[in-house]
Amino acid sequence: MHYHLAPQTGVAFTLERGQIVRIIDSQGEQVSDLTAFNRVDTREWLSSGRSLDYANTIYLTTGHTLYSNRSNPMFTILEDRVGKHDFLYTPCSPETFSILYGHQGEHPSCFDNLTESLAPYGITPDAIPTTFNIFMNVDVLPNGELKLGPPASRAGDYLDLRAEMDVIVGVTACSAEMSNNYSFKPIDVEVRG
Amino acid sequence: MHYHLAPQTGVAFTLERGQIVRIIDSQGEQVSDLTAFNRVDTREWLSSGRSLDYANTIYLTTGHTLYSNRSNPMFTILEDRVGKHDFLYTPCSPETFSILYGHQGEHPSCFDNLTESLAPYGITPDAIPTTFNIFMNVDVLPNGELKLGPPASRAGDYLDLRAEMDVIVGVTACSAEMSNNYSFKPIDVEVRG
Repeated sequence: MHYHLAPQTGVAFTLERGQIVRIIDSQGEQVSDLTAFNRVDTREWLSSGRSLDYANTIYLTTGHTLYSNRSNPMFTILEDRVGKHDFLYTPCSPETFSILYGHQGEHPSCFDNLTESLAPYGITPDAIPTTFNIFMNVDVLPNGELKLGPPASRAGDYLDLRAEMDVIVGVTACSAEMSNNYSFKPIDVEVRG
Repeated sequence: MHYHLAPQTGVAFTLERGQIVRIIDSQGEQVSDLTAFNRVDTREWLSSGRSLDYANTIYLTTGHTLYSNRSNPMFTILEDRVGKHDFLYTPCSPETFSILYGHQGEHPSCFDNLTESLAPYGITPDAIPTTFNIFMNVDVLPNGELKLGPPASRAGDYLDLRAEMDVIVGVTACSAEMSNNYSFKPIDVEVRG
């Protein structure tokens, strides 16, 4: 299965345990926000806090496990061609653009794209947690300040995740100017196994 | 109103908009995990991701706003005698002790104390998000590694939060050995206004 996400869009799909999803930055310097829910019981969700705690790092990469809020493994990172992703930020939302950037009026957002894509699976907007923001380049300075840089990903770079339970997955091609060096780009998604 | 939390316990209560809650580390080097929900609609919850994003730092202190998942202000930090708190970690749970520390059998935890305290308000365990871990001393090293140190708080140090909406609050006196320098201690909570 292949999904081509046009710039500033999202998609949701299901994975069976053992299937592998590849998130591909086809053109480079693009970010993809990912979230997931247990397919059998959607009250179980991908947890940033649990995953960072058990990995003891904010930079999850090859070999790390992504945990649910119930401390069950949801994904294993099988291969990572970039090595720097964010798990601190919520997906950009209409409020992100108004509060942080003073933007007026409509603006596409990962939050809206995720909620629209996940709605058919019964996921409500309030259930969207902090997302795993693939290729997003965030540094934490010694004083705690968050510093956002252009993604280190180059054209064709990817991250492979193996599902460790049956899951519903939401993925975006990011809508935020700051995250992707002001160049909205597509994201490609391949499912195998 | 005053609540004295014995070591390794928790409490939940409500605040009206404008009321101020003081979290006091009476003996020093203790951590208190705090979470909150909109009293009128408990699907709105205190969001680490939104709060860190809008503050652009992982260290929230005097003057910062704590936001909900809907990007509404839930609290303002009015006064902070310590200046270093964590908003990355989920509350310690039974799985924290088994996965990270290889602990066998029962162990008190902030997660269990929060879920028990919040149950009468209709909050389910799956609704507990990443908590605001007051006085918890976490550094992010340049390579992303998370480094946990003893709290910088001394006896009598406190943090004042003003509620910016009517909220249900859950607070603990932390149960984790690592967070509080292996010295389980009480936490005192005062509500005024």
